[in-house]
Amino acid sequence: MSRSVSLFIAMSLDGYIAAEGESLDWLEEVEGDNGFSDFYETVDTVVMGRRTYDWVMKQDLEEWPYPGKATYVVTSGDYENTRNVTFAGPDVLDELKKQDGKTIWIVGGGGLVRTYLNQGDITDMIVTVAPVLLGEGVPLFDEIPQTDLIKRRVREFGQFTELKFEVKSLRKKG
Amino acid sequence: MSRSVSLFIAMSLDGYIAAEGESLDWLEEVEGDNGFSDFYETVDTVVMGRRTYDWVMKQDLEEWPYPGKATYVVTSGDYENTRNVTFAGPDVLDELKKQDGKTIWIVGGGGLVRTYLNQGDITDMIVTVAPVLLGEGVPLFDEIPQTDLIKRRVREFGQFTELKFEVKSLRKKG
Repeated sequence: MSRSVSLFIAMSLDGYIAAEGESLDWLEEVEGDNGFSDFYETVDTVVMGRRTYDWVMKQDLEEWPYPGKATYVVTSGDYENTRNVTFAGPDVLDELKKQDGKTIWIVGGGGLVRTYLNQGDITDMIVTVAPVLLGEGVPLFDEIPQTDLIKRRVREFGQFTELKFEVKSLRKKG
Repeated sequence: MSRSVSLFIAMSLDGYIAAEGESLDWLEEVEGDNGFSDFYETVDTVVMGRRTYDWVMKQDLEEWPYPGKATYVVTSGDYENTRNVTFAGPDVLDELKKQDGKTIWIVGGGGLVRTYLNQGDITDMIVTVAPVLLGEGVPLFDEIPQTDLIKRRVREFGQFTELKFEVKSLRKKG
Protein backbone atom coordinates (compact mmCIF):
# COMPACT_ATOMS: atom_id res chain seq x y z
CA MET A 1 0.00 0.00 0.00
CA SER A 2 1.59 3.24 -1.13
CA ARG A 3 1.06 6.56 0.57
CA SER A 4 -1.90 8.76 -0.21
CA VAL A 5 -1.09 11.96 -2.04
CA SER A 6 -4.07 14.19 -1.33
CA LEU A 7 -5.45 17.54 -2.22
CA PHE A 8 -7.47 19.23 0.52
CA ILE A 9 -8.53 22.63 -0.65
CA ALA A 10 -11.46 25.01 -0.91
CA MET A 11 -12.65 26.45 -4.19
CA SER A 12 -15.44 28.71 -5.36
CA LEU A 13 -18.23 27.07 -7.39
CA ASP A 14 -16.49 28.40 -10.50
CA GLY A 15 -13.22 26.74 -9.54
CA TYR A 16 -10.99 29.44 -8.06
CA ILE A 17 -8.80 28.90 -4.99
CA ALA A 18 -8.02 32.59 -4.59
CA ALA A 19 -9.70 35.74 -5.79
CA GLU A 20 -7.94 38.32 -7.90
CA GLY A 21 -5.12 39.78 -5.81
CA GLU A 22 -4.85 36.46 -3.95
CA SER A 23 -7.50 37.51 -1.46
CA LEU A 24 -9.11 34.79 0.62
CA ASP A 25 -11.84 37.00 2.06
CA TRP A 26 -14.50 34.80 0.49
CA LEU A 27 -13.36 31.97 2.77
CA GLU A 28 -13.71 33.93 5.96
CA GLU A 29 -17.17 32.70 6.60
CA VAL A 30 -16.19 29.05 6.79
CA GLU A 31 -18.31 27.75 9.60
CA GLY A 32 -16.77 25.39 12.13
CA ASP A 33 -14.02 22.90 11.46
CA ASN A 34 -15.12 21.84 7.95
CA GLY A 35 -13.52 18.42 8.31
CA PHE A 36 -9.97 19.70 8.26
CA SER A 37 -8.92 18.34 11.67
CA ASP A 38 -9.84 14.77 10.72
CA PHE A 39 -7.89 15.05 7.50
CA TYR A 40 -4.93 16.77 9.11
CA GLU A 41 -4.48 13.91 11.57
CA THR A 42 -3.82 11.54 8.67
CA VAL A 43 -1.08 13.82 7.31
CA ASP A 44 2.59 13.70 8.24
CA THR A 45 4.02 15.52 5.22
CA VAL A 46 3.05 18.81 3.60
CA VAL A 47 4.04 19.86 0.06
CA MET A 48 3.26 23.36 -1.17
CA GLY A 49 4.18 25.64 -4.04
CA ARG A 50 6.46 28.60 -3.55
CA ARG A 51 3.70 31.16 -4.09
CA THR A 52 1.57 29.43 -1.48
CA TYR A 53 4.54 29.50 0.90
CA ASP A 54 5.03 33.21 0.24
CA TRP A 55 1.36 33.74 0.96
CA VAL A 56 1.61 31.85 4.26
CA MET A 57 4.66 33.90 5.29
CA LYS A 58 2.86 37.15 4.50
CA GLN A 59 0.10 36.29 6.96
CA ASP A 60 2.29 37.38 9.87
CA LEU A 61 1.35 34.31 11.91
CA GLU A 62 2.73 33.96 15.41
CA GLU A 63 3.61 30.32 14.81
CA TRP A 64 4.40 28.17 11.82
CA PRO A 65 1.01 26.66 10.88
CA TYR A 66 2.21 23.08 10.27
CA PRO A 67 4.26 22.15 13.34
CA GLY A 68 5.32 18.52 13.47
CA LYS A 69 4.71 17.92 9.77
CA ALA A 70 7.64 17.54 7.39
CA THR A 71 7.11 20.45 5.04
CA TYR A 72 8.52 20.84 1.53
CA VAL A 73 8.25 23.93 -0.63
CA VAL A 74 8.55 23.15 -4.33
CA THR A 75 10.59 25.69 -6.26
CA SER A 76 13.20 25.82 -8.98
CA GLY A 77 14.81 28.73 -7.15
CA ASP A 78 17.73 28.62 -4.76
CA TYR A 79 16.55 29.06 -1.18
CA GLU A 80 18.09 28.21 2.15
CA ASN A 81 16.09 25.73 4.21
CA THR A 82 14.53 27.06 7.38
CA ARG A 83 13.71 25.41 10.68
CA ASN A 84 10.26 24.65 9.34
CA VAL A 85 10.61 23.97 5.63
CA THR A 86 12.83 22.25 3.12
CA PHE A 87 13.02 23.73 -0.37
CA ALA A 88 13.14 21.21 -3.18
CA GLY A 89 12.34 20.63 -6.85
CA PRO A 90 9.10 18.93 -7.91
CA ASP A 91 10.82 15.53 -7.94
CA VAL A 92 10.81 15.55 -4.15
CA LEU A 93 7.38 13.92 -4.31
CA ASP A 94 8.83 10.84 -6.01
CA GLU A 95 11.27 10.47 -3.13
CA LEU A 96 8.59 11.00 -0.49
CA LYS A 97 6.33 8.38 -2.07
CA LYS A 98 9.08 5.80 -1.79
CA GLN A 99 9.36 6.41 1.94
CA ASP A 100 7.02 4.88 4.50
CA GLY A 101 4.65 7.38 6.02
CA LYS A 102 1.19 8.78 6.27
CA THR A 103 -0.71 11.02 3.85
CA ILE A 104 1.20 13.61 1.84
CA TRP A 105 -0.91 16.76 1.64
CA ILE A 106 -0.53 18.78 -1.55
CA VAL A 107 -1.53 22.16 -0.15
CA GLY A 108 -1.46 23.96 -3.53
CA GLY A 109 -1.47 26.02 -5.51
CA GLY A 110 -2.63 25.57 -9.06
CA GLY A 111 0.80 25.00 -10.57
CA LEU A 112 1.60 22.17 -8.21
CA VAL A 113 -1.80 20.58 -8.81
CA ARG A 114 -1.17 20.72 -12.55
CA THR A 115 2.30 19.19 -12.25
CA TYR A 116 1.24 16.33 -10.02
CA LEU A 117 -2.03 15.58 -11.84
CA ASN A 118 -0.11 15.43 -15.11
CA GLN A 119 2.38 13.06 -13.53
CA GLY A 120 -0.41 10.89 -12.13
CA ASP A 121 0.77 11.41 -8.57
CA ILE A 122 -2.43 12.58 -6.88
CA THR A 123 -4.41 9.70 -5.38
CA ASP A 124 -7.39 11.58 -4.01
CA MET A 125 -8.83 15.04 -3.63
CA ILE A 126 -11.04 16.63 -1.02
CA VAL A 127 -12.51 19.77 -2.54
CA THR A 128 -14.69 22.03 -0.42
CA VAL A 129 -17.04 24.12 -2.55
CA ALA A 130 -17.77 27.61 -1.24
CA PRO A 131 -21.12 29.25 -2.03
CA VAL A 132 -19.73 31.95 -4.27
CA LEU A 133 -18.81 32.66 -7.88
CA LEU A 134 -15.58 34.65 -7.95
CA GLY A 135 -15.44 35.30 -11.69
CA GLU A 136 -11.66 35.58 -11.72
CA GLY A 137 -8.62 34.61 -9.70
CA VAL A 138 -6.30 31.65 -9.34
CA PRO A 139 -7.92 28.51 -10.80
CA LEU A 140 -7.54 25.22 -8.95
CA PHE A 141 -7.51 23.19 -12.17
CA ASP A 142 -5.63 24.66 -15.11
CA GLU A 143 -4.13 22.81 -18.06
CA ILE A 144 -4.70 19.44 -16.46
CA PRO A 145 -5.27 16.09 -18.15
CA GLN A 146 -8.71 14.49 -18.40
CA THR A 147 -8.98 12.46 -15.21
CA ASP A 148 -11.68 10.04 -14.13
CA LEU A 149 -12.66 10.23 -10.48
CA ILE A 150 -14.65 8.09 -8.08
CA LYS A 151 -16.84 9.97 -5.61
CA ARG A 152 -16.22 8.62 -2.12
CA ARG A 153 -18.04 11.02 0.17
CA VAL A 154 -20.07 14.22 0.30
CA ARG A 155 -20.40 16.22 3.52
CA GLU A 156 -21.96 19.58 4.30
CA PHE A 157 -20.37 22.04 6.70
CA GLY A 158 -22.69 24.98 7.05
CA GLN A 159 -22.74 26.69 3.68
CA PHE A 160 -19.78 24.65 2.44
CA THR A 161 -19.91 21.30 0.62
CA GLU A 162 -17.01 18.89 0.85
CA LEU A 163 -16.60 16.49 -2.06
CA LYS A 164 -14.12 13.66 -1.68
CA PHE A 165 -12.90 11.84 -4.78
CA GLU A 166 -10.44 9.09 -5.43
CA VAL A 167 -8.47 9.41 -8.67
CA LYS A 168 -9.62 6.44 -10.76
CA SER A 169 -7.15 6.42 -13.62
CA LEU A 170 -3.66 7.41 -12.62
CA ARG A 171 -1.49 8.28 -15.58
CA LYS A 172 1.51 6.08 -16.15
CA LYS A 173 4.68 7.86 -15.22
CA GLY A 174 6.61 8.85 -18.36
CA MET B 1 -43.39 36.80 -6.16
CA SER B 2 -41.54 36.88 -9.45
CA ARG B 3 -40.74 33.83 -11.53
CA SER B 4 -37.68 31.72 -10.85
CA VAL B 5 -35.00 31.90 -13.50
CA SER B 6 -32.99 28.74 -12.96
CA LEU B 7 -29.94 27.00 -14.23
CA PHE B 8 -30.10 23.22 -14.16
CA ILE B 9 -26.95 21.82 -15.65
CA ALA B 10 -24.20 19.27 -15.18
CA MET B 11 -20.54 20.21 -15.06
CA SER B 12 -17.25 18.43 -14.51
CA LEU B 13 -15.46 19.11 -11.22
CA ASP B 14 -13.28 21.56 -13.15
CA GLY B 15 -16.31 23.47 -14.41
CA TYR B 16 -16.90 22.36 -18.00
CA ILE B 17 -20.34 21.66 -19.45
CA ALA B 18 -18.99 20.04 -22.60
CA ALA B 19 -15.68 18.44 -23.47
CA GLU B 20 -13.54 19.62 -26.33
CA GLY B 21 -15.50 19.01 -29.54
CA GLU B 22 -18.74 19.46 -27.60
CA SER B 23 -18.81 15.81 -26.61
CA LEU B 24 -21.07 14.82 -23.74
CA ASP B 25 -19.73 11.26 -23.45
CA TRP B 26 -18.60 11.97 -19.91
CA LEU B 27 -22.25 12.39 -18.92
CA GLU B 28 -23.35 9.04 -20.29
CA GLU B 29 -22.93 7.32 -17.01
CA VAL B 30 -25.49 9.47 -15.22
CA GLU B 31 -27.28 7.00 -13.01
CA GLY B 32 -31.03 7.21 -12.68
CA ASP B 33 -33.09 10.35 -12.87
CA ASN B 34 -30.64 12.68 -11.06
CA GLY B 35 -33.45 14.94 -9.88
CA PHE B 36 -34.29 16.28 -13.30
CA SER B 37 -37.94 15.14 -13.40
CA ASP B 38 -38.79 17.01 -10.20
CA PHE B 39 -37.18 20.16 -11.52
CA TYR B 40 -38.71 19.82 -14.96
CA GLU B 41 -42.22 19.72 -13.51
CA THR B 42 -41.71 23.22 -12.11
CA VAL B 43 -40.71 24.54 -15.55
CA ASP B 44 -43.05 25.97 -18.16
CA THR B 45 -40.53 27.95 -20.20
CA VAL B 46 -37.17 26.96 -21.66
CA VAL B 47 -34.50 29.43 -22.81
CA MET B 48 -31.38 28.20 -24.55
CA GLY B 49 -28.51 29.60 -26.56
CA ARG B 50 -28.26 29.08 -30.29
CA ARG B 51 -25.27 26.74 -30.05
CA THR B 52 -27.12 24.61 -27.53
CA TYR B 53 -30.10 24.54 -29.89
CA ASP B 54 -27.86 23.46 -32.77
CA TRP B 55 -26.46 20.73 -30.57
CA VAL B 56 -29.96 19.50 -29.69
CA MET B 57 -30.93 19.44 -33.38
CA LYS B 58 -27.82 17.45 -34.28
CA GLN B 59 -28.82 14.68 -31.90
CA ASP B 60 -31.29 13.34 -34.47
CA LEU B 61 -34.00 12.88 -31.84
CA GLU B 62 -37.32 11.38 -32.85
CA GLU B 63 -39.23 14.00 -30.92
CA TRP B 64 -38.60 17.53 -29.76
CA PRO B 65 -37.25 17.07 -26.21
CA TYR B 66 -39.28 19.85 -24.54
CA PRO B 67 -42.89 19.28 -25.61
CA GLY B 68 -45.42 21.49 -23.88
CA LYS B 69 -42.81 24.03 -22.74
CA ALA B 70 -42.59 27.43 -24.36
CA THR B 71 -39.10 27.39 -25.82
CA TYR B 72 -36.98 30.38 -26.80
CA VAL B 73 -33.64 30.25 -28.58
CA VAL B 74 -31.56 33.33 -27.96
CA THR B 75 -29.71 34.58 -31.02
CA SER B 76 -28.83 37.79 -32.75
CA GLY B 77 -29.29 35.99 -36.07
CA ASP B 78 -32.36 35.98 -38.27
CA TYR B 79 -34.16 32.66 -38.02
CA GLU B 80 -37.68 31.59 -38.81
CA ASN B 81 -39.62 30.28 -35.83
CA THR B 82 -40.49 26.60 -35.89
CA ARG B 83 -43.39 24.67 -34.44
CA ASN B 84 -41.30 24.10 -31.32
CA VAL B 85 -39.17 27.17 -30.81
CA THR B 86 -39.27 30.95 -31.01
CA PHE B 87 -36.04 32.74 -31.88
CA ALA B 88 -35.44 35.96 -30.00
CA GLY B 89 -32.79 38.36 -28.73
CA PRO B 90 -31.52 38.14 -25.15
CA ASP B 91 -34.09 40.72 -24.01
CA VAL B 92 -36.80 38.08 -24.33
CA LEU B 93 -36.04 37.11 -20.74
CA ASP B 94 -37.13 40.54 -19.50
CA GLU B 95 -40.47 40.05 -21.22
CA LEU B 96 -40.90 36.53 -19.88
CA LYS B 97 -40.18 37.63 -16.32
CA LYS B 98 -42.99 40.17 -16.52
CA GLN B 99 -45.46 37.46 -17.45
CA ASP B 100 -47.09 35.15 -14.93
CA GLY B 101 -45.81 31.64 -15.10
CA LYS B 102 -43.68 28.91 -13.61
CA THR B 103 -39.91 28.48 -13.59
CA ILE B 104 -37.90 29.66 -16.59
CA TRP B 105 -35.12 27.15 -17.24
CA ILE B 106 -31.92 28.61 -18.65
CA VAL B 107 -30.66 25.47 -20.39
CA GLY B 108 -27.30 26.98 -21.42
CA GLY B 109 -24.74 27.37 -22.68
CA GLY B 110 -21.94 29.41 -21.24
CA GLY B 111 -22.69 32.60 -23.18
CA LEU B 112 -26.26 32.75 -21.98
CA VAL B 113 -25.19 32.08 -18.40
CA ARG B 114 -22.70 34.93 -18.64
CA THR B 115 -25.26 37.33 -20.09
CA TYR B 116 -27.94 36.59 -17.54
CA LEU B 117 -25.61 36.44 -14.53
CA ASN B 118 -24.20 39.81 -15.54
CA GLN B 119 -27.69 41.21 -15.79
CA GLY B 120 -28.66 39.76 -12.41
CA ASP B 121 -31.45 37.68 -13.90
CA ILE B 122 -30.61 34.24 -12.57
CA THR B 123 -32.37 33.51 -9.27
CA ASP B 124 -31.04 30.04 -8.56
CA MET B 125 -28.79 27.35 -9.93
CA ILE B 126 -28.83 23.59 -9.67
CA VAL B 127 -25.40 22.35 -10.66
CA THR B 128 -24.74 18.63 -10.84
CA VAL B 129 -21.05 17.83 -10.43
CA ALA B 130 -19.80 14.84 -12.43
CA PRO B 131 -16.87 12.80 -11.08
CA VAL B 132 -14.42 13.81 -13.77
CA LEU B 133 -11.85 16.46 -14.64
CA LEU B 134 -12.14 17.31 -18.33
CA GLY B 135 -9.17 19.66 -18.56
CA GLU B 136 -10.66 21.59 -21.49
CA GLY B 137 -13.96 22.29 -23.16
CA VAL B 138 -16.85 24.70 -22.79
CA PRO B 139 -16.79 26.34 -19.34
CA LEU B 140 -20.06 26.85 -17.47
CA PHE B 141 -18.85 30.07 -15.85
CA ASP B 142 -16.77 32.41 -17.98
CA GLU B 143 -16.32 36.14 -17.52
CA ILE B 144 -19.03 36.33 -14.92
CA PRO B 145 -19.38 38.81 -12.06
CA GLN B 146 -18.57 37.90 -8.46
CA THR B 147 -21.83 36.52 -7.11
CA ASP B 148 -22.72 35.46 -3.59
CA LEU B 149 -24.81 32.31 -3.32
CA ILE B 150 -26.82 30.59 -0.60
CA LYS B 151 -26.61 26.81 -0.52
CA ARG B 152 -30.11 25.37 -0.33
CA ARG B 153 -29.67 21.64 -0.86
CA VAL B 154 -27.13 18.93 -1.64
CA ARG B 155 -28.20 15.58 -3.06
CA GLU B 156 -26.26 12.60 -4.32
CA PHE B 157 -27.35 10.63 -7.36
CA GLY B 158 -24.99 7.71 -7.78
CA GLN B 159 -21.62 9.21 -8.64
CA PHE B 160 -23.14 12.65 -9.24
CA THR B 161 -23.60 15.43 -6.68
CA GLU B 162 -26.34 17.98 -7.10
CA LEU B 163 -25.72 21.37 -5.51
CA LYS B 164 -28.62 23.79 -5.35
CA PHE B 165 -27.92 27.47 -4.72
CA GLU B 166 -30.02 30.56 -4.53
CA VAL B 167 -28.40 33.72 -5.89
CA LYS B 168 -27.97 35.95 -2.85
CA SER B 169 -27.04 39.27 -4.36
CA LEU B 170 -28.74 40.00 -7.63
CA ARG B 171 -27.10 42.83 -9.49
CA LYS B 172 -29.18 45.90 -10.05
CA LYS B 173 -30.36 46.12 -13.62
CA GLY B 174 -28.53 48.88 -15.46
